[in-house]
Amino acid sequence: MEVKARAPGKIILAGEHAVVHGSTAVAASVDLYTTASVRLPSSSDKDDLVILQLKDLALEFSWSISRIKEALGVFVGAISTPTSCPAECLKSIVSLVEDQNIPEAKIGLASGVSAFLWLYSSILGFVPVDVVITSELPLGSGLGSSAAFCVSLSAALLALSGSVNVDREYRGWMVYKEDELDLLNKWAFEGEKIIHGKPSGIDNTVSTYGSMIKFKSGSLTLIKSSMPLKMLITNTKVGRNTKALVAGVSERAIRHPDAMNSVFNAVNSISNELSILIQSPVDDEVCLTEKEEKLAELMEMNQGLLQCMGVSHASIETVLRTSLKYKLVSKLTGAGGGGCVLTLLPNLLSGKVVDEVIAELQSCGFECFIAGIGGKGAEISFGDLS
Amino acid sequence: MEVKARAPGKIILAGEHAVVHGSTAVAASVDLYTTASVRLPSSSDKDDLVILQLKDLALEFSWSISRIKEALGVFVGAISTPTSCPAECLKSIVSLVEDQNIPEAKIGLASGVSAFLWLYSSILGFVPVDVVITSELPLGSGLGSSAAFCVSLSAALLALSGSVNVDREYRGWMVYKEDELDLLNKWAFEGEKIIHGKPSGIDNTVSTYGSMIKFKSGSLTLIKSSMPLKMLITNTKVGRNTKALVAGVSERAIRHPDAMNSVFNAVNSISNELSILIQSPVDDEVCLTEKEEKLAELMEMNQGLLQCMGVSHASIETVLRTSLKYKLVSKLTGAGGGGCVLTLLPNLLSGKVVDEVIAELQSCGFECFIAGIGGKGAEISFGDLS
Repeated sequence: MEVKARAPGKIILAGEHAVVHGSTAVAASVDLYTTASVRLPSSSDKDDLVILQLKDLALEFSWSISRIKEALGVFVGAISTPTSCPAECLKSIVSLVEDQNIPEAKIGLASGVSAFLWLYSSILGFVPVDVVITSELPLGSGLGSSAAFCVSLSAALLALSGSVNVDREYRGWMVYKEDELDLLNKWAFEGEKIIHGKPSGIDNTVSTYGSMIKFKSGSLTLIKSSMPLKMLITNTKVGRNTKALVAGVSERAIRHPDAMNSVFNAVNSISNELSILIQSPVDDEVCLTEKEEKLAELMEMNQGLLQCMGVSHASIETVLRTSLKYKLVSKLTGAGGGGCVLTLLPNLLSGKVVDEVIAELQSCGFECFIAGIGGKGAEISFGDLS
Repeated sequence: MEVKARAPGKIILAGEHAVVHGSTAVAASVDLYTTASVRLPSSSDKDDLVILQLKDLALEFSWSISRIKEALGVFVGAISTPTSCPAECLKSIVSLVEDQNIPEAKIGLASGVSAFLWLYSSILGFVPVDVVITSELPLGSGLGSSAAFCVSLSAALLALSGSVNVDREYRGWMVYKEDELDLLNKWAFEGEKIIHGKPSGIDNTVSTYGSMIKFKSGSLTLIKSSMPLKMLITNTKVGRNTKALVAGVSERAIRHPDAMNSVFNAVNSISNELSILIQSPVDDEVCLTEKEEKLAELMEMNQGLLQCMGVSHASIETVLRTSLKYKLVSKLTGAGGGGCVLTLLPNLLSGKVVDEVIAELQSCGFECFIAGIGGKGAEISFGDLS
């Protein structure tokens, strides 16, 4: 038996950084997916193994069931509700990961493998499985690749475990019911905690539910976009230190409290305006174009405020300038200091212009993705999808 | 007899655009000068002529005294206080200017020539003069070239007219006394009104008094910089429509009142911080470097907010990116949409780096000036300066 689950990545449409200082932010799903395929091997296969393949990275890890049971059996009984991995258990998991001799250059993946072991053993117990992960999301670029990994993996494991009510005969992508999405989201959050320590919960929530969420002071509200929205996502491939960037903004806020407070207030207004704009109905093409213009203006304003916070970067400015040549508006998304940049692609924009701007950005060494924004969340499927 | 007067240009250090919406702004003089040399021809010279030479533009205008007297005599009696040019008089002035057949490409200078005729006839009466104007300031780039023209011209005319108390035997640059500076400033403002319609009075005040001024809601306060400050001024040579840019910001403020109000508040805080920073004493080199870093941060923040207002331009971004490569911070100055960009040059910066950044900016087709900021105002000199 095999189940596939896919979960989307996320972008921050407005409010990054300022959210740390009490402003509203808006995140949205992007239709770039991480897919987890989980297969229960038939008895004729080489049994007694848990295999995790990270296809895009050409990595494969495996453990014998007895080894995992020995290490984690005492911690993982009959868990049916999402539970945080106890510190003692995490130690055992880390030693299981160390067995695998992950190459030094890819050691950053260790926490993801740890999250896998916790989610697998807690949700499914100790049965042989063959897990294959593929992803359209670049790693560590602020597009929520780790959350999409945790959500897709948890979704597939939950479907196999029988903890959720799904139609195993249906052929095609299915979504969970509302309360089961909550269960999925909570499990994925437990995986995220292993990877990130103190995640905000935004990434896994967007990846689980799709669409968009508004968040402020730790509280999340799902919002429904009524606007077909397409963005060009440019990965500058410039690595950055999110913690240092967040700390830099806080230090600037300490040095210039009045000015920065006004800046955070401005961002708050922009996020609120944007979420109202995105939820308001679109009557016709004219109306859509007007809304796109307003959205572009809000993005431009937010980008200026991010520059005011000091989190832009030469690579980001290059993307801004390049897209501006084509009269397209961009803003950084996420931590800044490199990472990804969003460029709004109006619905009436010709494909030729899109091709040109992509070619020019690629010639700068950047990686480009066209993505629909605010679409579906996690989905599962049994059997053949082709 | 000959008198020379020179008057500096100005930059806006912080607060442009936001000042229209009630925020504080800070302007400063730059040590780039417009010089007016006014000579009373000896009787052996070709007399009965008023000659205005704009040396940098290779233009010369001249009128016979009788022609000017005929046109303006009824308006200009024994004026001793600064007076606005009456509408009827301006009509006569315009016809005097039309006599000169200014080439179509330089018709923008007509209002400056009009201002000359009003200041000349009002301050000096109808005596033959030979006036030569030279300037280090680019025209129409937001560096206050018209104010420097009006101030230097008025300063020379006032000195010749005997309306001010100056030592005609001293050889070297002299400054007016405080109350005479007021008189000079008021006359220059009358010239500015002919050129600009409704000038703010900031440019002529900075050009007259030098140093810096803080201005908010129409009220100006002179402030004294205690910081040696050097900027690279890059003229993008991109022409812009100041009125349209100002209107654009106002329209954005109508569309997004909450966000833009916060943005204007942020700018207000930045201008206030900057004016305090600039006036606080500098104890040593370490202290100066720290102050320069703070100033750079305030400039970066202000630039982000100007981008948020939508008044940046691709050419401005090019200057920002280029200077950033050398770890130098820049902001646009004035209306934006092209025009000039300031780059802070720290006192300890090596000349080699300055040369490199200038060479790179020039290779983009820009014009660069190194200028001391917050220095002297208008000065006059009799006789030979060499």
